[in-house]
Amino acid sequence: MASVDERKAIVEQYLKLVSSGTADEIMALYAPDGTLEDPVGTEPKVGREEIGAFYRSFESMEISTNLREVRASGDAAVAFAFDVVTKLPDSAMKVSAIEVMTFDDAGLITSMKAYWSPETDVEMS
Amino acid sequence: MASVDERKAIVEQYLKLVSSGTADEIMALYAPDGTLEDPVGTEPKVGREEIGAFYRSFESMEISTNLREVRASGDAAVAFAFDVVTKLPDSAMKVSAIEVMTFDDAGLITSMKAYWSPETDVEMS
Repeated sequence: MASVDERKAIVEQYLKLVSSGTADEIMALYAPDGTLEDPVGTEPKVGREEIGAFYRSFESMEISTNLREVRASGDAAVAFAFDVVTKLPDSAMKVSAIEVMTFDDAGLITSMKAYWSPETDVEMS
Repeated sequence: MASVDERKAIVEQYLKLVSSGTADEIMALYAPDGTLEDPVGTEPKVGREEIGAFYRSFESMEISTNLREVRASGDAAVAFAFDVVTKLPDSAMKVSAIEVMTFDDAGLITSMKAYWSPETDVEMS
C-alpha cells in the first residue's frame, strides 16, 4: 500500500515524465497488467506494451504539464486535475483533464482513467 | 445517454441541492440501484435508501458548495473538483474533493465516488 504522500509523489513524477521523460520511463510506473483509458469512453489499453505505445506516440513532442490539485483517497486511489500543453509549429494545444489512478502494494499504477472531452477541454492558443 | 452539457447541468444541480436541497431531492438524482462511495476506500452505499440516509445525516447543516471544474468524458462519465464548506458553531470546515459520477441513459447517477482524505483535504477556519 502506497501512502498518501507516496501516491502524490508518483503523480508528480508521472507528470514530470510526461513532460520530459521517455515512454519507457512512464511505462515503468505501470504494473505489468495495468490499464489505461484516455479519454474515458475509449477502448482501454491493457498491459505495458499497449501502454508504452500510447506514450510513445507523443514522446517526441514538446510538452509541459501543470498539476493543479491532487486528492488521495483510501489505501490505493488518487484523483488529480492538471493541464498538458503541447507545442505545435505555430500554436499550442492545452488539454485540461482530471485523472484517476489506482495503485498496487508496490506503488505501481494498476489503472489510469482520464476524464476530458475533445469538444470542451482542449484550448488552442 | 446524457450529453456533456446535460451531465454538467446535473453536477451543478447536485451541488446546489447538497447546499440547499433535501436528502430526498438529492436521492432522486440517483438511479434506484445507484452506488455512493464517499470517501473512496469506505464501504459503498447501495440503493436509494442507503444513499438517502447518507445525505440525511447532514441535511440540517448549513452548507455551501463551490464547483471549481468539471470534465465530462465519453458517453456516461463526469469528474469534477469542488469544495463543500460546512458552518459549525464557532468555525467552518472546508472539504476539497474530486468526484467521479457515471450516469444511465435517463441521466440518473449510477455511481458516485468521492476522492479526498480526512488527513489532507479538510481545512478548518
